[in-house]
Amino acid sequence: MTALLHYEDFRVGQVHPLGTHTLTADEIIDYAREFDPQPQHLDEEAAKHSLLGGLAASGWFLGALAMRMIVDNLFIRAASMGSPGIDELQWRRPVYAGDTIALEGEVIAARASSRRDRGFVKFRFTFYRTTGGARERAMTYVSSVMFRRRDAEP
Amino acid sequence: MTALLHYEDFRVGQVHPLGTHTLTADEIIDYAREFDPQPQHLDEEAAKHSLLGGLAASGWFLGALAMRMIVDNLFIRAASMGSPGIDELQWRRPVYAGDTIALEGEVIAARASSRRDRGFVKFRFTFYRTTGGARERAMTYVSSVMFRRRDAEP
Repeated sequence: MTALLHYEDFRVGQVHPLGTHTLTADEIIDYAREFDPQPQHLDEEAAKHSLLGGLAASGWFLGALAMRMIVDNLFIRAASMGSPGIDELQWRRPVYAGDTIALEGEVIAARASSRRDRGFVKFRFTFYRTTGGARERAMTYVSSVMFRRRDAEP
Repeated sequence: MTALLHYEDFRVGQVHPLGTHTLTADEIIDYAREFDPQPQHLDEEAAKHSLLGGLAASGWFLGALAMRMIVDNLFIRAASMGSPGIDELQWRRPVYAGDTIALEGEVIAARASSRRDRGFVKFRFTFYRTTGGARERAMTYVSSVMFRRRDAEP
């Protein structure tokens, strides 16, 4: 009965759209109070005088938002088994209160595991920020995700 | 009057102790509800039947905790200017409710920027989990942090 995505369903070159999110000042500040209490993430006035020039999301908040969007838009319909880590995470552009960001996950590699029940799918995840009609990369990272193999299902 | 740490104060081989934290089930679940709603992070009973075998922190929650401990124990007394990204993040061992983790930051490289006022210090941050008297690496990652140069102060 299951229509969950398995390892075999992912192919190099696929780009999975993973939703959009508009950041509010409140959520940027709430996250920063708990996890990253630096002036550029905590306070609009202090942020104006920081290197970023305005209230901007903590980089780790962007990572957390990406995780949430991956769960809601991909893992919810996939037989995922977690991830061993992250590579090449780059914070390329600040994301400010009021900005809308869109997440995409491109499949850049796939390989079976030595364990017969699973395979690794390597994604490049990118948060795009739209500015003046053009898309800019705000954050990118590479991460491998383990998925069950369909041909190993009981 | 400032005794803030600057670029020149960091040298390859230094290991900065950055505090300890004991995780509660409540904070693991609170984070997961907001950012990583998967069964192994959300619910003790469901987690027992997951690959991790018990309620374990979201990997992104560990990253957020590391950020907080870096702010509280290092940036608070340093002239930091942010970070462009992360490399080689590995989730090596699950961290369960009740576990105590200790964060360390080892300086593995340092180089002046082409901009005269700053330099890059590359750290390997490691969360150690103590199990049966032995330390195990639970999470490691590499990240460069920009600090102001003391000799560029006005």
